[in-house]
Amino acid sequence: MSSTQDIDALIELMAKLPGLGPRSARRAVLHLIRKRSLLLMPLADTLRTVAETARECLNCGNVGTTDICDICTSEKRATGELCVVSDVADLWAMERSGVFKGRYHVLGGTLSALDAIGPEELRIPRLLDRIPSENITEVILALSATIDGLTTAHYIADQLEGQVRLTSLAQGVPVGGELDYLDDGTITAAMRARTTL
Amino acid sequence: MSSTQDIDALIELMAKLPGLGPRSARRAVLHLIRKRSLLLMPLADTLRTVAETARECLNCGNVGTTDICDICTSEKRATGELCVVSDVADLWAMERSGVFKGRYHVLGGTLSALDAIGPEELRIPRLLDRIPSENITEVILALSATIDGLTTAHYIADQLEGQVRLTSLAQGVPVGGELDYLDDGTITAAMRARTTL
Ligand SMILES: [Zn+2]
Ligand SMILES: [Zn+2]
Repeated sequence: MSSTQDIDALIELMAKLPGLGPRSARRAVLHLIRKRSLLLMPLADTLRTVAETARECLNCGNVGTTDICDICTSEKRATGELCVVSDVADLWAMERSGVFKGRYHVLGGTLSALDAIGPEELRIPRLLDRIPSENITEVILALSATIDGLTTAHYIADQLEGQVRLTSLAQGVPVGGELDYLDDGTITAAMRARTTL
Repeated sequence: MSSTQDIDALIELMAKLPGLGPRSARRAVLHLIRKRSLLLMPLADTLRTVAETARECLNCGNVGTTDICDICTSEKRATGELCVVSDVADLWAMERSGVFKGRYHVLGGTLSALDAIGPEELRIPRLLDRIPSENITEVILALSATIDGLTTAHYIADQLEGQVRLTSLAQGVPVGGELDYLDDGTITAAMRARTTL
């Protein structure tokens, strides 16, 4: 099917997205072709724009369209509280709950002996720098309650001991559960009942 | 988060794809942003190309990049056999199995009393025209074994009675099962054991 090369290429690219396999990629592409003006064209345009503008905040690792993200530049968010998450998706989940008014630090993963991910592979050195430069008084470790998440929390707590108040999300985070799967209410409860390490 | 409007718009568009909800759309967008050159840029380009070139074959309803698709223009596929499917995804599934060498006719759905889909809403008039003009001797009804699929098959069989040999996929198509979910071997078996209606 030589004249359908582009369609085949599109299916192959779509199948690389998390959550889509070859079959759902084919369905998605047919859906896109049927909704050319309502979905296909706007999606192509928006992808192009995001490709040109999206970047990671140089300070916190959040995704935005400026070198330093809105949260890092907002004086209102300079509360002295810094919430450490592993992934941007977790930051977005926290923001949806609306419970936290401070700033974030996105590690970009968790420490993992198995995957050979050490502190230098994550945004940990930058985190240590931010404590004095942004007058941080409390670091909230909002990491998943997995083995790697707990290892990472303990490593960071060791590094920061005596410098700041260290807390972690507590009530409501299920053991082995990932933050991004939680509903807003659970995140709010976990934040309100946070415990000192 | 004003400067992330485009990212939010992208998440909203992605969430409209079948198989992706808001959460998986967010994951997909973060994945795209991380894989800017490997995935985001090629996807934007390919979507643009497909938006500009993809169209439905005026003869059979297949999706391609020409007014009449490769299968309809190929003399090799003029075997006198015409395989009727409800959806392009089903045509693709048949082609992957490689068992069928004739041409297709994509109805664009199935008759449905509930959804008020009658013969004129589907590509049925065009199907009737093709029988004499393409010297069709056998029509294989490869429709899903659902109530709407069976209703559609009976309607078409009534229209074509006496004009052509009418067969349907038989062995291997599970009751209530959809064609696009079947593996190649099952489709091959069903095609080989097709029965005369
Ligand atoms: Zn930032
Ligand atoms: Zn065609």
